Amino acid sequence: MEIAILIYDRFTALDAVGPYEVLSRLPGAKVTFVAESADLQRTDTRQLALLAEATLEEMPAPDIVLVPGGPGQDALMGDGPVHEWLRAADATSTWTAAVCTGSLIIAAAGLLAGKRATSNWQALEQLGELGADVVPERFVFDGKYATAAGVTAGLDMALALAGRIAGEQVAQAIQLGLEYDPEPPFNAGSPEKAPAEIVEAVRAYSRFAGAT
Amino acid sequence: MEIAILIYDRFTALDAVGPYEVLSRLPGAKVTFVAESADLQRTDTRQLALLAEATLEEMPAPDIVLVPGGPGQDALMGDGPVHEWLRAADATSTWTAAVCTGSLIIAAAGLLAGKRATSNWQALEQLGELGADVVPERFVFDGKYATAAGVTAGLDMALALAGRIAGEQVAQAIQLGLEYDPEPPFNAGSPEKAPAEIVEAVRAYSRFAGAT
Repeated sequence: MEIAILIYDRFTALDAVGPYEVLSRLPGAKVTFVAESADLQRTDTRQLALLAEATLEEMPAPDIVLVPGGPGQDALMGDGPVHEWLRAADATSTWTAAVCTGSLIIAAAGLLAGKRATSNWQALEQLGELGADVVPERFVFDGKYATAAGVTAGLDMALALAGRIAGEQVAQAIQLGLEYDPEPPFNAGSPEKAPAEIVEAVRAYSRFAGAT
Repeated sequence: MEIAILIYDRFTALDAVGPYEVLSRLPGAKVTFVAESADLQRTDTRQLALLAEATLEEMPAPDIVLVPGGPGQDALMGDGPVHEWLRAADATSTWTAAVCTGSLIIAAAGLLAGKRATSNWQALEQLGELGADVVPERFVFDGKYATAAGVTAGLDMALALAGRIAGEQVAQAIQLGLEYDPEPPFNAGSPEKAPAEIVEAVRAYSRFAGAT
C-alpha cells in the first residue's frame, strides 16, 4: 500500500506527521513524502525541514494521497504541477485525504466539488467557495475523500481511516502504540470552546501572519 | 528562548514534532533540532527523515532541552556524547523535558534520580529501575523536569509547559491555532482502556520489534 504525503514550502509539520505516524503503522504500508522537487521542504515556522524522498513524477499512482495544510497552501491554489499530480493521482487512488488547509488545495484542484468536507475552522468559508459541501466536524468522509479540521485533527482522521482500511482492531493497536489517550490541559481547542478573546486573538494573528 | 530538540537514528517523529508544533509558537521561541551530527536523522519507520540543523556542540546551553523517544533510545542508554551533552545542557536549562522513552535516556544520563516522572506505558518499570519516582500519568512535572507518556502525550505536556512559560492565554491560543480538540474515533489509547487482546498484541509486537 503506497501512501504519498505531499509536502511543500511552509507546510505545517504536524498536519503531515500526525497522519504519517498512524498510517505508516498499517500492515504493508509504505509512506513516501513527495514534493515538486525531492529535497528538503521547510515548514511554516522555518525551524524544521523534512526530506521529500520522491518527486511527484516518481509517485504517479499511490493508493493513498494525503495533503497537509499550512501557510504555504496559499501558493498552491492555482493550476500547475501540484494540481495536475493531484488530479492524476486521485484518478486511481483508493483514498484521497487532506488535513487543515490541505483541503483547500485539493478543492482548488477540483477534487471536492459537491463532496462533504471540512478544514481548519478559519478556512471553512473558503472551502465552501471552492465547491465543497462544508461539514464543520472534526473529520469527514465522503466516499474515498477524507478531510480533517485543523492540524491535530489529522490524527483523529488517520485513525478512523486506519480502521476503514485494516479494521478496528488494527486501528486500536496503533492508537495504543501511540498512547493516544488525549488529556489537553486546557479546553480551548475549538472556537466554540475557547474564550472569545482567545478566538479573536487567533483570528487577528492569522490575518496578520497570512496563515489559516 | 532557545529550545533544543534532540533527534537521533530511529526516533519516533511525533514524539518530537508534537511538542515542536506547540513550543515553536511561543513568543520569542527558536527551536533547533540537534543531533550528534548535523544531518538527516531517519525515524523508526525508516520512511521519514528530519534535518538536524546543529550539532550538540553548537547548542551547549539551550533554555529548554527536549528528548523524544523511539526504538533508537536503546542505543543511547550508555555513557557518551549524548549523555555528556544532556548533563551539561541540563545544568543551565530552565526546563528539561522528555516524551515517551526519551525519559529513559535522560534518566540514564542521571537527570531523573528521585524525580517524579513518566514514560510510555511499556517503559515505566525500566524508568523506575533508572532511579525515577514513577508516576503513571499523562504528563508529570517535578521542578523543571517535564516528562510525558507515550508519543502523543508530548502534545499535552507541551501545552502545559507553554502555559507555565507564557501563561494560560498564550497556551490556549496555541491550542486553538492547532485546533487541538481531540476526538479519537476509538477508545483504546491506554492499556486500561484498550481491549485486553489489543494490549497483549501491542506488548507482543513491541517485544518482537524491540520497540518500547
